[in-house]
Amino acid sequence: MDRLKTYRLKELDDTGLDRICRRPRIDLESLVTKVRPILEDVRRDGDAAIRRYTKKFDGIDLRDIVVDPESLDVTLPDEEKHALDIAMRNVHRFHREQMSMNLEVETMPGVTCSRVIRPIEKVGLYVPGGSAPLPSTAVMLGVPALTAGCETIILATPPDRNGSVPPAIAYVAQKIGAKKILLAGGAQAIAALAWGSESVPGVDKLFGPGNQYVTAAKMLLQNSEAMVSIDLPAGPSELLIIADETADPDFVAADLLSQAEHGPDSQVVLAAVSGFDLEELETALERQLGELPRVSIATDALAHSFIVLADRVEEALDFSNRYAPEHLILNCRNAVELMDRVEHAGSVFLGGWTPESLGDYASGTNHTLPTYGYARMYSGVSLSSFQKSITFQEATPDGLKHIGPTVETLAGMEGLDAHRLAVSRRLEKLNNG
Amino acid sequence: MDRLKTYRLKELDDTGLDRICRRPRIDLESLVTKVRPILEDVRRDGDAAIRRYTKKFDGIDLRDIVVDPESLDVTLPDEEKHALDIAMRNVHRFHREQMSMNLEVETMPGVTCSRVIRPIEKVGLYVPGGSAPLPSTAVMLGVPALTAGCETIILATPPDRNGSVPPAIAYVAQKIGAKKILLAGGAQAIAALAWGSESVPGVDKLFGPGNQYVTAAKMLLQNSEAMVSIDLPAGPSELLIIADETADPDFVAADLLSQAEHGPDSQVVLAAVSGFDLEELETALERQLGELPRVSIATDALAHSFIVLADRVEEALDFSNRYAPEHLILNCRNAVELMDRVEHAGSVFLGGWTPESLGDYASGTNHTLPTYGYARMYSGVSLSSFQKSITFQEATPDGLKHIGPTVETLAGMEGLDAHRLAVSRRLEKLNNG
Repeated sequence: MDRLKTYRLKELDDTGLDRICRRPRIDLESLVTKVRPILEDVRRDGDAAIRRYTKKFDGIDLRDIVVDPESLDVTLPDEEKHALDIAMRNVHRFHREQMSMNLEVETMPGVTCSRVIRPIEKVGLYVPGGSAPLPSTAVMLGVPALTAGCETIILATPPDRNGSVPPAIAYVAQKIGAKKILLAGGAQAIAALAWGSESVPGVDKLFGPGNQYVTAAKMLLQNSEAMVSIDLPAGPSELLIIADETADPDFVAADLLSQAEHGPDSQVVLAAVSGFDLEELETALERQLGELPRVSIATDALAHSFIVLADRVEEALDFSNRYAPEHLILNCRNAVELMDRVEHAGSVFLGGWTPESLGDYASGTNHTLPTYGYARMYSGVSLSSFQKSITFQEATPDGLKHIGPTVETLAGMEGLDAHRLAVSRRLEKLNNG
Repeated sequence: MDRLKTYRLKELDDTGLDRICRRPRIDLESLVTKVRPILEDVRRDGDAAIRRYTKKFDGIDLRDIVVDPESLDVTLPDEEKHALDIAMRNVHRFHREQMSMNLEVETMPGVTCSRVIRPIEKVGLYVPGGSAPLPSTAVMLGVPALTAGCETIILATPPDRNGSVPPAIAYVAQKIGAKKILLAGGAQAIAALAWGSESVPGVDKLFGPGNQYVTAAKMLLQNSEAMVSIDLPAGPSELLIIADETADPDFVAADLLSQAEHGPDSQVVLAAVSGFDLEELETALERQLGELPRVSIATDALAHSFIVLADRVEEALDFSNRYAPEHLILNCRNAVELMDRVEHAGSVFLGGWTPESLGDYASGTNHTLPTYGYARMYSGVSLSSFQKSITFQEATPDGLKHIGPTVETLAGMEGLDAHRLAVSRRLEKLNNG
């Protein structure tokens, strides 16, 4: 294929495989240099700094940077409301099933341990703007936050050209019970959510994808005095497709392009199993590319994307596990039977009738997913991202008699006498009492 | 009380409360300046750099920095083995119950979403040394890693004076099936686990408490090209005790001291509810302090610890939630009934017979917990810390017909035509086929 670099998997050694799995490098140091002053300005000057950056970067001079969602009169076509409603319902259905039960275990006679799940109190959801507002991200972050029971949901999104909240975002903000909308984007919005300002309440945890400045801001803030955690490090979006001879090249081409149109830094990989029709794919790709409005973005993304050739689907899956893609489409025979072999991926799309778009918008799974190979150790956003757990334990006097000697021995081994004595003094009183 | 600063809660406004809740500041910038060169040396020079730093900081010249646990002949008194066995059993009992079930939800007719839990493949467990080896940390990290099914467990701990693995750590390493033990401590050990070296396999996730250099190393590495995540930011240990008139001052004094002996930077807070005998406490504290070998550490810790006076237990709990302590002892009447009111805490100890030591060693809960106020948004280490989840979705042709129009509308709203077309091209073929 002319447009995409092609490698035969069995001709690559470990070094070669690692090389093609490596994502385009982000220069974090230079990002940090740009982002840090923004974070510090917002920390110091609050609302004034946010206004200043919104004017500078978005060209909008805002008086009120924070809006009460309930005050907004949302005008949106019924068809769009309906589509958002269905997406919210599906996301709710899948996420509510993720509720972990509280737990109680008697680990020894008289010693009971329990775990209680609590919603994180204040969460900040960043919904990027860009070429168009992205209500789907508001759905993907807002619905689990509401389902988890977070008390304060603050949504941040860049203002539209009129300095207003885009109607579809406003619609979702109302449905998820967001307390406030911060009309700001980029690192300045993230900083406002983390530090708080005169009009923005600081939050406990930051969520949401964004450009590289947003990502750098989140990473810096999670290590700062702002006392804030983040959902996951998010980079440019990625898709790996495994296609065998049963895959329709038209669909594979459409899926590759759906990922490529995200941005020029998106990465698209096709693992073609022997028998898949690559010539047909090339024809389909060129034809479909010509039909796309975002053709130049997609072309740029394809320029650093590639094809790997596999003899068997297992070989393709091994490569996928090494790559650890954000999105994985298994467009091959008996896709469901391959689930067990997927070790590292954010979200997986099974069979020929499940394009990635379904998960991006409405199937019910979350679209905030680990990129860059982080699927090895991070999960996508889920209900538990909006929760924390607290453990409890209680010993009865008899329980203390059972467990006490063990604790005394272990504390003694570590030379922590006061730890030991906290038990011994009690046992003494029990035995004398 | 002479030794501890005392505040009456109702005389403090928000600013005053926030001030006493603030932990002693860590100067992260100066730490970073010290730690970064270590991380870079280890990245560049691998084993040689690790050896160099072990010689420099621990005064030990090691030939083999990595040991196979199975090769070790462990000599440990039976009583100590037995105590470690009981701790491991209890931790296993509590953590195995945390296993989340795989999940399958049909969100719309023909659209099935599922979630599968997978162990994180390679984990690195840091077990600090210090004045004595801490086998309890090996238990608290190793048992959940084993329970989760992590394939490669690497344990790192500083060598003892003879350049060997402390026997109690070796015993636990064998029991949890650790693949290797890295005999190194501090930032150099963390760097080795993250970057990997000639003899240390790089891991996916870093676990474990440690001194401020270890914490700084973990925080820097989670934002680096090492592609590694961390359990949670951990600072100096903390304890808040709520004691009412039913609390035995002897026990309260013992618990305060058990926390204070951890280190001079440990923080201890007593919220005394009206009726608790503070004079008795003072007497007990002075008497017990005199009996402690680590008296100077405990005295230093007590110097920046304090008492708050509350009229009612609810007032004390409100303060505790603001402080968000790592450990919370509820030494008061009907402690179990107060569980629902605990909003922010790492682990909670209920009633007069449950000293913190139980959870530190053997009750079954994890002792790796959020400090510094991070209990607002982080959980302690749990089974899920060693797991990740992957979501899957599958649409049947009928399912695609149901969900397709919703996705087409939403993709259209966001101006992502290729996303829309990935659905439309399939629907077209279905309708014509």
